Amino acid sequence: MGIRVAVAGASGYAGGELLRLIAGHPELDMVAATAHRQAGAPVTAVHPQLVGLDLVFAATEPATLADADLVFLALPHGESAALAAALPETVRVVDLGADHRLRDAAAWTRYYGGEHAGTWTYGLPELPGQRAAIAAATRVANTGCYAVATTLALAPLVAAGAVDPADVVVVAASGTSGAGRAAKTNLLGSEVMGDLSPYKVGAHQHVPEIKQATGATSLSLTPVLAPMPRGILATVTAVPTGDADPRAVLARAYADAPFVHVLPEGAWPHTAATLGSNSCHLQAGVDVDSGRLIVVSAIDNLGKGAAGQAVQCANLMLGLPETMGLSVWGIAP
Amino acid sequence: MGIRVAVAGASGYAGGELLRLIAGHPELDMVAATAHRQAGAPVTAVHPQLVGLDLVFAATEPATLADADLVFLALPHGESAALAAALPETVRVVDLGADHRLRDAAAWTRYYGGEHAGTWTYGLPELPGQRAAIAAATRVANTGCYAVATTLALAPLVAAGAVDPADVVVVAASGTSGAGRAAKTNLLGSEVMGDLSPYKVGAHQHVPEIKQATGATSLSLTPVLAPMPRGILATVTAVPTGDADPRAVLARAYADAPFVHVLPEGAWPHTAATLGSNSCHLQAGVDVDSGRLIVVSAIDNLGKGAAGQAVQCANLMLGLPETMGLSVWGIAP
Amino acid sequence: MGIRVAVAGASGYAGGELLRLIAGHPELDMVAATAHRQAGAPVTAVHPQLVGLDLVFAATEPATLADADLVFLALPHGESAALAAALPETVRVVDLGADHRLRDAAAWTRYYGGEHAGTWTYGLPELPGQRAAIAAATRVANTGCYAVATTLALAPLVAAGAVDPADVVVVAASGTSGAGRAAKTNLLGSEVMGDLSPYKVGAHQHVPEIKQATGATSLSLTPVLAPMPRGILATVTAVPTGDADPRAVLARAYADAPFVHVLPEGAWPHTAATLGSNSCHLQAGVDVDSGRLIVVSAIDNLGKGAAGQAVQCANLMLGLPETMGLSVWGIAP
Amino acid sequence: MGIRVAVAGASGYAGGELLRLIAGHPELDMVAATAHRQAGAPVTAVHPQLVGLDLVFAATEPATLADADLVFLALPHGESAALAAALPETVRVVDLGADHRLRDAAAWTRYYGGEHAGTWTYGLPELPGQRAAIAAATRVANTGCYAVATTLALAPLVAAGAVDPADVVVVAASGTSGAGRAAKTNLLGSEVMGDLSPYKVGAHQHVPEIKQATGATSLSLTPVLAPMPRGILATVTAVPTGDADPRAVLARAYADAPFVHVLPEGAWPHTAATLGSNSCHLQAGVDVDSGRLIVVSAIDNLGKGAAGQAVQCANLMLGLPETMGLSVWGIAP
Repeated sequence: MGIRVAVAGASGYAGGELLRLIAGHPELDMVAATAHRQAGAPVTAVHPQLVGLDLVFAATEPATLADADLVFLALPHGESAALAAALPETVRVVDLGADHRLRDAAAWTRYYGGEHAGTWTYGLPELPGQRAAIAAATRVANTGCYAVATTLALAPLVAAGAVDPADVVVVAASGTSGAGRAAKTNLLGSEVMGDLSPYKVGAHQHVPEIKQATGATSLSLTPVLAPMPRGILATVTAVPTGDADPRAVLARAYADAPFVHVLPEGAWPHTAATLGSNSCHLQAGVDVDSGRLIVVSAIDNLGKGAAGQAVQCANLMLGLPETMGLSVWGIAP
Repeated sequence: MGIRVAVAGASGYAGGELLRLIAGHPELDMVAATAHRQAGAPVTAVHPQLVGLDLVFAATEPATLADADLVFLALPHGESAALAAALPETVRVVDLGADHRLRDAAAWTRYYGGEHAGTWTYGLPELPGQRAAIAAATRVANTGCYAVATTLALAPLVAAGAVDPADVVVVAASGTSGAGRAAKTNLLGSEVMGDLSPYKVGAHQHVPEIKQATGATSLSLTPVLAPMPRGILATVTAVPTGDADPRAVLARAYADAPFVHVLPEGAWPHTAATLGSNSCHLQAGVDVDSGRLIVVSAIDNLGKGAAGQAVQCANLMLGLPETMGLSVWGIAP
Repeated sequence: MGIRVAVAGASGYAGGELLRLIAGHPELDMVAATAHRQAGAPVTAVHPQLVGLDLVFAATEPATLADADLVFLALPHGESAALAAALPETVRVVDLGADHRLRDAAAWTRYYGGEHAGTWTYGLPELPGQRAAIAAATRVANTGCYAVATTLALAPLVAAGAVDPADVVVVAASGTSGAGRAAKTNLLGSEVMGDLSPYKVGAHQHVPEIKQATGATSLSLTPVLAPMPRGILATVTAVPTGDADPRAVLARAYADAPFVHVLPEGAWPHTAATLGSNSCHLQAGVDVDSGRLIVVSAIDNLGKGAAGQAVQCANLMLGLPETMGLSVWGIAP
Repeated sequence: MGIRVAVAGASGYAGGELLRLIAGHPELDMVAATAHRQAGAPVTAVHPQLVGLDLVFAATEPATLADADLVFLALPHGESAALAAALPETVRVVDLGADHRLRDAAAWTRYYGGEHAGTWTYGLPELPGQRAAIAAATRVANTGCYAVATTLALAPLVAAGAVDPADVVVVAASGTSGAGRAAKTNLLGSEVMGDLSPYKVGAHQHVPEIKQATGATSLSLTPVLAPMPRGILATVTAVPTGDADPRAVLARAYADAPFVHVLPEGAWPHTAATLGSNSCHLQAGVDVDSGRLIVVSAIDNLGKGAAGQAVQCANLMLGLPETMGLSVWGIAP
């Protein structure tokens, strides 16, 4: 008998990926998967990739979840806080939503609207001291997808004083699953295939999260929707402030991180190489004309950007090996 | 210390998928991965998805492979036979190439050219009696990708006398990885994205293999190249000869097969749902106008269509659980 | 001052392509483009590719359309009949919907539901005698997308007695724009990219239309959704009944058809080569194992499969050159 | 009898697009299309989208081209200069290669290698005074694809003093046709579909061209390969230096430019909306956190980024209307 886990909001893309990871995890037992409109439907009607998984969506009720040792919340922003508040303190919670990521309540209200629900331990184990903090926590706020891609590229460089924290420019492109499973015309295959287009230009809600996690004090983020189901490629540029070798700074920061890889010199990240994995691939170089430092980061937005990260946090919270049930290797081509 | 395995021809797409599966397999230890032109290069230079895998391609020499308990051959058609002949009898071999699949030497010569190298145990465990045959064999000829998709859809129906074996029409579309990793203009992303096109029309080399494996006596196969990296969707139509319920026939045939799934009524296979898995999804129905039976089959051409199937055979040959190191579930979306 | 045309249902994909073709047509003047929910919105808010086109969607009212010389109806099936009935007889109408395609009222009711609204001249100019019939008509029922791809491949062979009309098997894959612009989960980019899946298996509503247009008496059609925005590839197989050279039969049938091309021997159709054009590419061969004849047809489903065909018909009805405002050449890569 | 034009290097992607545009151009007659390895082959064997075009590739010899009124050179960088030098002065030339774009010979040598061949009139008609310069020229250096996307977004803002020319950061993603038609493993469909990856990071050869054309004095350009055949999306960020409304600056600059469109407020560019057109779509906004100005530009890399631009220049050089034979509207979806 393993550790009992449940997923609230399991009919979305991050929820489906959580179900896959939990189903293949040696120590976790799925006791409930909940949904709103899909309650009562077989999980495989929504997630045909989970063929043979004999599970029916329950309604998203606290009582259904309270029985678990650990609950993953994969709900729309703003819905996690109320549900989490209704769960016993003894139930560990990993929230894939944004409700508890920010320390700055004003920033929360500005970017998400409504009242801030409080701050939880930030679920990015690769930040200094964070692995231990997560292991000790019962409530963890999982990272945003753009936030993890950008933070892993940038945080060690800011911490090392290697770049100016006041001048960071990020352009990050994401596969369409990052926009969710709700039926919208602009997300139809006919619209997105063959297309690149920016969105939420100059005002993406992951900006305060990235600043908080990296120490950047001014950051321009332009998100782009890319014609692929999964993957984020973040191009992070900043002004170097010294002679530090950025690759060495990054390599040192992630020497003990099983999922973050500074690629061999000359190799640049490919999102396709991270598909289905919990890995982040990094490379850094200097622009010969402007002298700006360029760090590029690739992740699977549903893996290290959402569900994989959440399982990594859960492993730490439950005293399991950090890598259990997760893959370092992607599925390619 | 696990079971020692080696992969010859590990720089191609099937080879890369084999490396991924072996690296994640609890009982297999990789002792060598060989290549021709890439010999001496790090595996990750060719397969960046295997980040962190500390392995260098060796040259493809019998001596390099002879030390393994089991060798996978992922070589171009016609190259396996000579290499296999140079390996000790005690080394188990799974050949992903076509060299030893056919019993009919004349058919081999007609479709592949050259002299036939002999027949090995056919590596499709879901055929009646074949699981035991593979477990007892030291030389196994892994299935062709179109062959496995078509055979799993058709063989039980022919065996049950439910369809006329003399009138089978198959149109099967494959992702581009099925065409290999050699640089060819017609396989460039610019050419294949947004494109569907048939190839080898009326003369594909998997036809004799499918006839041998299914009992069909006349079969038209039209392969189509589809704009996606992985996946085969085979649409198999045949004339029913009785009142048998095709879904029931298929369900009975695969009751004990962990990787073959007859979908719930009304659900038709999606190749995307099989990505990265070793599963085959099946559904059957009857065309209201013509009365033809239509069976549709979806697999990952590099999974159940190649490397996954090979590992499944290896598991059987080595006395391991058939499903070890393989996933029933796909990565989606 | 040109000929005055209007488009009803201009907010869909076929409607948008009609607007593009009309805007670039030397003799046609757009006087109205109507929509339901988008009425009042600028056309470019829905169709950003028509940048600079200064036009606002009107509501779909007969009065708005009655003023035109020719009206294109690009409405959902079942909505054309009522609107057409409300237009003056003097207004020419090309209906891109299915309402008036079938001669068999029972087939209409079986496949579409509801009562049959009557039969109009069938808008496939390449059928024998049809070019003149269209030129003389004031009401034309434009072809279905799968119907035109299949009919152009098959009709001359049936007419020539070269194939058995009672045994035709078609598998036809379409890009996602064929499924329309309504927001549905199964059409999201995240779902369709990397995926092939059949739909409406064994019961597609184009079957009676194809039988009527080709003379086939029994026909199995399996439609497949393909991961690309546009294009249909139809693989048509039939049993030859004589020694006729199928390429010669096709070449003779289309000797005077500017948009239908039998490709040079050895070249098979690519849907990508038809993008944005009104062309159909054809090739034929014989399956060596089964002896079945295989004819493959490629079109742009929004071009020759919908809007292009409609403009071709309009040209004929208006006494203009058949090819005016249409391209033989596709946009590739 | 029209104006006689020829295309050298017509077997590549830009060459194929030139052939399509010329074939549809009311005033241009194609007298020769040349290639290297494909000399002697029918054009349609390489470009099946040009079905019915009865033309055979000639060898790339000056004598073949000297007879034309205007020659387009679509050759690899470094090959245009010698060929152009061998053509009579009376033959107008538009060079799609980079050989004659730069005024700074040292920059040429640094980025392209070899000796600089001299500077021609720069073929971007939308720059101030450039329309007239092109009309008066007999030798025109067509723009680079990233250069045109970036320059149209940036040049008016630098000229108006609205941004700091010393701090420009560009991340620009391109479809795969920008990488050409040579068969390379990293450009295979299997590799690029589902993938985003940067390349030539920090050292792309279009940087000096963009600086020359825009007046930027320091510019970081990170190019990204995107999973689509065509399209460039350039995200240009710069530090505002005053209160100028960037949209107003851009709108004023392109008031008379038929192909450059500042989108309505709130609408951001989509590359898919430019497919097959000669248009550039622009939008600008300000990042709320950093205060940086963000301008996004979308073009078809083979249209406004190469062949379309070249025909636009040719129209001006030949005294024809600037828009003749070119489309403002894209093909979508």
